[in-house]
Amino acid sequence: MGDDAAVVRARPICVTSVDAMVEGVHFRLSEDWVTAGQVGRRSLAAALSDLAAMGAEAGEAYLVVGLPAGFGEERGLELLRGAMSLAAQTGTAIVGGDVVSAPALMVCVTVVGWAESADELVGRDGAIPGDLVGVTGSLGGAGAGLAVLEGRVPAAPGREAVLARFREPTPRLAEGRALAAAGVHALIDVSDGIATDARHLGRASGVQLRVDLGALPLGEGVSEVCAELDMPAWKLAADGGEDYELCFCVAPSERVHVEEAVNGARGEAGGAGVTWIGRVVEGPPGVVLLDERGQDLRIEGFEHLL
Amino acid sequence: MGDDAAVVRARPICVTSVDAMVEGVHFRLSEDWVTAGQVGRRSLAAALSDLAAMGAEAGEAYLVVGLPAGFGEERGLELLRGAMSLAAQTGTAIVGGDVVSAPALMVCVTVVGWAESADELVGRDGAIPGDLVGVTGSLGGAGAGLAVLEGRVPAAPGREAVLARFREPTPRLAEGRALAAAGVHALIDVSDGIATDARHLGRASGVQLRVDLGALPLGEGVSEVCAELDMPAWKLAADGGEDYELCFCVAPSERVHVEEAVNGARGEAGGAGVTWIGRVVEGPPGVVLLDERGQDLRIEGFEHLL
Repeated sequence: MGDDAAVVRARPICVTSVDAMVEGVHFRLSEDWVTAGQVGRRSLAAALSDLAAMGAEAGEAYLVVGLPAGFGEERGLELLRGAMSLAAQTGTAIVGGDVVSAPALMVCVTVVGWAESADELVGRDGAIPGDLVGVTGSLGGAGAGLAVLEGRVPAAPGREAVLARFREPTPRLAEGRALAAAGVHALIDVSDGIATDARHLGRASGVQLRVDLGALPLGEGVSEVCAELDMPAWKLAADGGEDYELCFCVAPSERVHVEEAVNGARGEAGGAGVTWIGRVVEGPPGVVLLDERGQDLRIEGFEHLL
Repeated sequence: MGDDAAVVRARPICVTSVDAMVEGVHFRLSEDWVTAGQVGRRSLAAALSDLAAMGAEAGEAYLVVGLPAGFGEERGLELLRGAMSLAAQTGTAIVGGDVVSAPALMVCVTVVGWAESADELVGRDGAIPGDLVGVTGSLGGAGAGLAVLEGRVPAAPGREAVLARFREPTPRLAEGRALAAAGVHALIDVSDGIATDARHLGRASGVQLRVDLGALPLGEGVSEVCAELDMPAWKLAADGGEDYELCFCVAPSERVHVEEAVNGARGEAGGAGVTWIGRVVEGPPGVVLLDERGQDLRIEGFEHLL
């Protein structure tokens, strides 16, 4: 610290991801929406989730914060404390950064993770026909929280649970490492909604993921918000972003092994657990979403149909 | 590429720096000021200069680009090409990034450099009394270019040279490695003007740098711009930022060795050369700037006096 750059003793494989959040684009800043501390936490969480999706161990983080005129030192420090709290929780060291003036609040986070060998990591491209499709934790909470914040469901029960999920996400780092060690074939984080992220995984692997919408694990309060919105209960779980769960494909023989590995990784944050939501088949690469009657809702373009 | 994060085979020591530039704060975007391509190049150059200032070898770069509405794909690609051109010139691989919407153009660059051991690197804190103070290349060009762009010296001769220096900076990576290998005690890049950066180095080392203003190497066109501004010729060299030269302290016995090392590092970009601008003494930590008669111009607060 104090020199022109941060110096870190490396491990053999370096895994790096960058992520940016901009006020007015990715969030609105107010006590009703998110606090400055939550902006700090969310920005770091989104970047760390990419390391989780590789099975890497979190190492260092670098924060660039763009502060608008009048933002104030106190809120700047609150933002940093929000990031530092998640850093401590995940074993990440914030070792560098920069503060600049900007027309709106923006946070750009670089995270560096490490592995002892490339074999420890998992990409998106290894799924094979016959694999099971699993997901950690629960889905839809962040999307439901966003719907509440946007005023679309002011009276919904479950409001507090979904707001917390939106405001204070937790990247699944321990679960990601456990899944990689358990031999999953492909892994991705659910940042854009599982309909989209499962499609990315399917395309990268050249296979088709058939996902049962009725099997999606709904976060607390999600079905209540969907009811208020007059949507099927799986809608926000399939389409809502920023849950930061992990979606993976693995041989059926590893089913119990994977469940035990993920359960064993549950940390203070409460942990995730595994839900099996579909299977991998040969076919046009991507995702097929099946409703309760087993009918295809789409192959592509889901977001435009509903 | 294509996964959630970039995976790189590491060397033993990882050196990381982040840097951000925001339109309206760090530059104005127009054909008169800087092009989109120059914004890309300048952002990467500023970050790489921090690696040069450690004596690290450049490895990878990650670009986050915030694009305002209507910026257009063509200019976005031009920005990327500007960065890629400097990346190719410096042996840097751009291996990751993100594009987001933003209220103004902003570029956030993370650069990662490498070394075989921490001993290969040089910080700011090793200068000792008796050392010589040296600087690579020439100073004041970028500051003079900024003065021209701001319309303060519309008629100055030397205009093209100083504009080029502002618009297309070159980080001194090869020179930084050569200086580190030659055994300099302390090293910093001149991003805020040598008056400020020499003060940083002096304070970090707990010594006083006595810098002869008359010895500062002036960039092409700098004295002409200073004359138009009715300033002493050394003013922009001392106070102007963004020259991205390197300032260092080294034992007098290594003088010729260091000159040869830096001259040997000159690459296609034209190279830098060394000018000796002062010496290190015991005293209140920081910098003392001496005019041609050897009189102190200040110890601190230079920027407010002139």
